[in-house]
Amino acid sequence: MAAAVRFLARVAYLGRDFAGWQRQRAARTVQGTLEDALARLFGCGVAVVAAGRTDAGVHADGQVVHFDAPPRIPAHGLVPVLNTALPDDLRVLAVAVAPAGFHARRSAHAKRYRYRLAWGEPLAPWDALRTWELSCRPDLPALRAGLAAVEGEHDFAAFARSGHSGTGARGTVRRVTRVGLVQRGRRASIVVEGDGFLRGMVRRVVGAAVEVGRGAARPQWLKALVDDALTAPPAPTAPPHGLTLERVWY
Amino acid sequence: MAAAVRFLARVAYLGRDFAGWQRQRAARTVQGTLEDALARLFGCGVAVVAAGRTDAGVHADGQVVHFDAPPRIPAHGLVPVLNTALPDDLRVLAVAVAPAGFHARRSAHAKRYRYRLAWGEPLAPWDALRTWELSCRPDLPALRAGLAAVEGEHDFAAFARSGHSGTGARGTVRRVTRVGLVQRGRRASIVVEGDGFLRGMVRRVVGAAVEVGRGAARPQWLKALVDDALTAPPAPTAPPHGLTLERVWY
Repeated sequence: MAAAVRFLARVAYLGRDFAGWQRQRAARTVQGTLEDALARLFGCGVAVVAAGRTDAGVHADGQVVHFDAPPRIPAHGLVPVLNTALPDDLRVLAVAVAPAGFHARRSAHAKRYRYRLAWGEPLAPWDALRTWELSCRPDLPALRAGLAAVEGEHDFAAFARSGHSGTGARGTVRRVTRVGLVQRGRRASIVVEGDGFLRGMVRRVVGAAVEVGRGAARPQWLKALVDDALTAPPAPTAPPHGLTLERVWY
Repeated sequence: MAAAVRFLARVAYLGRDFAGWQRQRAARTVQGTLEDALARLFGCGVAVVAAGRTDAGVHADGQVVHFDAPPRIPAHGLVPVLNTALPDDLRVLAVAVAPAGFHARRSAHAKRYRYRLAWGEPLAPWDALRTWELSCRPDLPALRAGLAAVEGEHDFAAFARSGHSGTGARGTVRRVTRVGLVQRGRRASIVVEGDGFLRGMVRRVVGAAVEVGRGAARPQWLKALVDDALTAPPAPTAPPHGLTLERVWY
């Protein structure tokens, strides 16, 4: 039998009915659903590693994963075969043979998340699935000014899950290479790009920025949160369904 | 107690988990879900009439309905109150007091439907919910030429549900005031506007046009279907999940 080949795949999922990426014994997760479909297809256990372990309720449009499997089906043939086996809230968008040494998480050098906001009118169900509907119009210049403070390399401990001590040599220091707000009528997207993210970090950046946008805090508050990570009270968390992992760079 | 007031509302729904608009004893329908929410809210039975009775699986972005209810809650206040009571695949977008003599179906003088197509790459789940994914790229100029034949006033019997004899004095004659195809990359929308539609008519127009687009029929076929409604074999039906009732004019 030929040796296993490492495949990389781009996958999209609607987070609503998943308890996040990571496999759990008693809950429906993206990793568990993908691994089960691959196991049925190849007749043996297949482990799937993702670029980013998204939380419960968070969506992905461009999540990247790798897995090792027998080279029985050509990569492009795996797309329709897997989509037939997967539920309709999880889709494989593309599959390729991975370059030598490729690792979906460790080889990633940047990611982009998008957080969708809306206000002032109810959304149709398909938009509401992926948007945080604010009850009032936010002060967008203030929100934007608050966001600007997180750009650059900072200690993001105040934006991490409580008790998070960071991973690896960097601790809770991360570099946000770009943060922006794109407005279109009564909707806006917050786009955050960086070399790595702590768990819950994007949702806390958005949660803090929306506090500023609704006038409950001043834009300088986000600067205080990144400058003085240890003493500042942690930032509030925006709901998961507004967030999408949009792209991973290698 | 004050007399009932006629309200009109714009509603949006994701058709997937509804057995269509019309109330049924044993199935989840849009009308049944709306009427049940209104009955809980007002404590008495409230009948809801829609501009268009969409089929199972068909979505609406701009469905218009009317209902008579006590003037206990101001119209704009009904929006958040109803949305709290409704499931998340059915949303009320706006409510107003209806003008005198208003009837959601009989006062409507035109409607617009949009049918979404895509090809060549898998879609993310939120797009796949409302799009017919074709396995091959269609011949768009041929598809467009076929569609052009349905513009104008015709006997659409070949595009009606089998056994459909038409309603009212017009029988199966309807006027399509505009039909167009908008392409963007590997996606396209077929937009159909008209003064009235037979049940299943838009899905059969799209079904026939896609047959032309995939080379199984010539554009002239759609002309034959509208010219010779009685002898032509009926047009095939496109799947419901690509179709959205987008707008109703009064």
